Amino acid sequence: MPIAFCIEARDPGSHARAGTVTTEHGSFPTPAFMPVGTAATVKGVWPGQLVEMGYALVLSNTYHLYLRPGHERVRRLGGLHRFMGWDRSLLTDSGGYQVFSLSALRKVTDEAVSFRSHIDGSLHVLSPELAVFIQEALGSDIRMVLDECVEYPAGRPEVEDAVRRTTAWARRSLAAARREEGGMFGIVQGGMFPDLRKRSVEEVCALDFPGYAVGGVSVGEGKELQREVVALAAPLLPADRPRYLMGVGTPEDIFFAVSRGVDMFDCVLPTRNARNGTLFTSSGPVVIKQARYAEDPLPPDEECGCPTCRSFSRAYLRHLYMQKEILSSMLMTVHNLHHYARLMEGIREAILVGNFKEFMKESLGSRDT
Amino acid sequence: MPIAFCIEARDPGSHARAGTVTTEHGSFPTPAFMPVGTAATVKGVWPGQLVEMGYALVLSNTYHLYLRPGHERVRRLGGLHRFMGWDRSLLTDSGGYQVFSLSALRKVTDEAVSFRSHIDGSLHVLSPELAVFIQEALGSDIRMVLDECVEYPAGRPEVEDAVRRTTAWARRSLAAARREEGGMFGIVQGGMFPDLRKRSVEEVCALDFPGYAVGGVSVGEGKELQREVVALAAPLLPADRPRYLMGVGTPEDIFFAVSRGVDMFDCVLPTRNARNGTLFTSSGPVVIKQARYAEDPLPPDEECGCPTCRSFSRAYLRHLYMQKEILSSMLMTVHNLHHYARLMEGIREAILVGNFKEFMKESLGSRDT
Repeated sequence: MPIAFCIEARDPGSHARAGTVTTEHGSFPTPAFMPVGTAATVKGVWPGQLVEMGYALVLSNTYHLYLRPGHERVRRLGGLHRFMGWDRSLLTDSGGYQVFSLSALRKVTDEAVSFRSHIDGSLHVLSPELAVFIQEALGSDIRMVLDECVEYPAGRPEVEDAVRRTTAWARRSLAAARREEGGMFGIVQGGMFPDLRKRSVEEVCALDFPGYAVGGVSVGEGKELQREVVALAAPLLPADRPRYLMGVGTPEDIFFAVSRGVDMFDCVLPTRNARNGTLFTSSGPVVIKQARYAEDPLPPDEECGCPTCRSFSRAYLRHLYMQKEILSSMLMTVHNLHHYARLMEGIREAILVGNFKEFMKESLGSRDT
Repeated sequence: MPIAFCIEARDPGSHARAGTVTTEHGSFPTPAFMPVGTAATVKGVWPGQLVEMGYALVLSNTYHLYLRPGHERVRRLGGLHRFMGWDRSLLTDSGGYQVFSLSALRKVTDEAVSFRSHIDGSLHVLSPELAVFIQEALGSDIRMVLDECVEYPAGRPEVEDAVRRTTAWARRSLAAARREEGGMFGIVQGGMFPDLRKRSVEEVCALDFPGYAVGGVSVGEGKELQREVVALAAPLLPADRPRYLMGVGTPEDIFFAVSRGVDMFDCVLPTRNARNGTLFTSSGPVVIKQARYAEDPLPPDEECGCPTCRSFSRAYLRHLYMQKEILSSMLMTVHNLHHYARLMEGIREAILVGNFKEFMKESLGSRDT
């Protein structure tokens, strides 16, 4: 079954839309946020807890799974869904972003990117075809083409090269695909050059993918430039396909991107911040290690109904964090992911009832970030 | 309400008995195993998961909570139950064992034990009275008297001193108690000297505690001596009070002690082993890091119905363990605690239906430990 996307409502005052994406592993409502399950686990939570929070889609990282435990091993064990005990939809990235950000000694040619593992220094070559084969072995529902992600700042010739390669690699990815199930999303690049963004959109979208991602953001360009790119690129992507903004972001970033027509997001912020002791709350961030919380009997967020807020105080979370207890990461991850799930629900609901702009204003106005 | 103990069945062929202990926070069936919640958390599990596994009693460590976050802080936050989100029964030890095993530069007098914190080297004095006050501040349901725990091997004069002090401290503990709720258990010492064990039992039991513990085991004496002490001391303790064997142990140790009349146990083995990657299973230990499990699609224990075994393979657990993922400790802790919970249920059921010896033989026979 290919990937289906149905739009249920459009916000009259912006590009925001509410819809449903359907894969072999069920449907998920959009706008959607994906928790990041780097090494076949969303750190600190049971898969069942994700379902309880309302998540029906998670992301896992091709780069990490390719290196360990290896995609062929995962395939022999019945695929990534079975391996990690997750029976809802699963999106895998292409590995490109990690190759460009984590690995050492990478070298890009038109053919492929070679790199050394950040773990053991071993040499690897990732081609668009291999990225497809790895993801097909993992059996993810949504697979991403390998693109060339350029760090900010980058000169025009470099970005132009990346756009050209990204298109060529997208074409090769489609040609390499062997699985009928699921589908592959194209990715547009173009750095911070409006005309190159447009060119990338035109070239990649001509290939007719069932969904498209805006890549090459969250690469050091800063909030303002990121928003310019999103504002430019997202509305250019085909209106009848899901649009995915990779690696973004804060609640503020998500609101902005939704207003420009983005449907899907992933980001390590809620999970990573949880492990670092920072909670997202309805009144802004709570940095739990602060001494002011040592005897604070309140839940992390008085407006939150998550399992953590229902049972535990800031004082207890601070104690767990200071003691480096496993439960610290567990409780705070559930809270932050619950916060994000409710955020996305609220956004979707607001679009459906036609008051997205008011909801955004209200939500962002009450933060002190 | 004091602590109530009711015996429902006695095994005709041994000292084993099945009963129920009731505290202000409900009842728990015996023989009972207590998960260890050192720093106000059973590492790697949500309190609700303990309840789901059937646990109605956990242990927490006075020594650790006294040092961090501090018992007065816990009291101000509503007591340990509320602090850690646990509304069933709670037992706290006296701190004595950790002072004797973890801290540096300890000095014991008849008055108290002085020690330096294993965390920051700060100097502390723990008296029997302070041990009572700390536990009352924590608000545990079952509190343990401060005893003098002597390491093995120890000479007769040293053990004789410990027996004398332990009795004197037990008396002072009772005199110091200010809370009417819950209750305090006495502890008997005596090292490996049968006559000193008997003397300690006589002296401490004359003080009429609602329950008694066999202390001074698991101190380096080895399995054989430990069993000799348990076989001697446990049956001497009042038959109408719960008997608690501190810090024990393996399933084999538990079977043995139950057959000698012990009702309660605590041990870090299931939780610590889980974090170290060793699973208790119906066919013996599984050391998950072994390469043989790298592509093993079977659950950790095919006879187990725990949430981990229902959803995950040995291969996945090995992957998580090798990657040092938080979920590794989480999944394996749930499995091991589930294993212990079913073990205790099986033991109790066997006593109730009168085939404890057969059940023990069958259970131990199928292990390769």
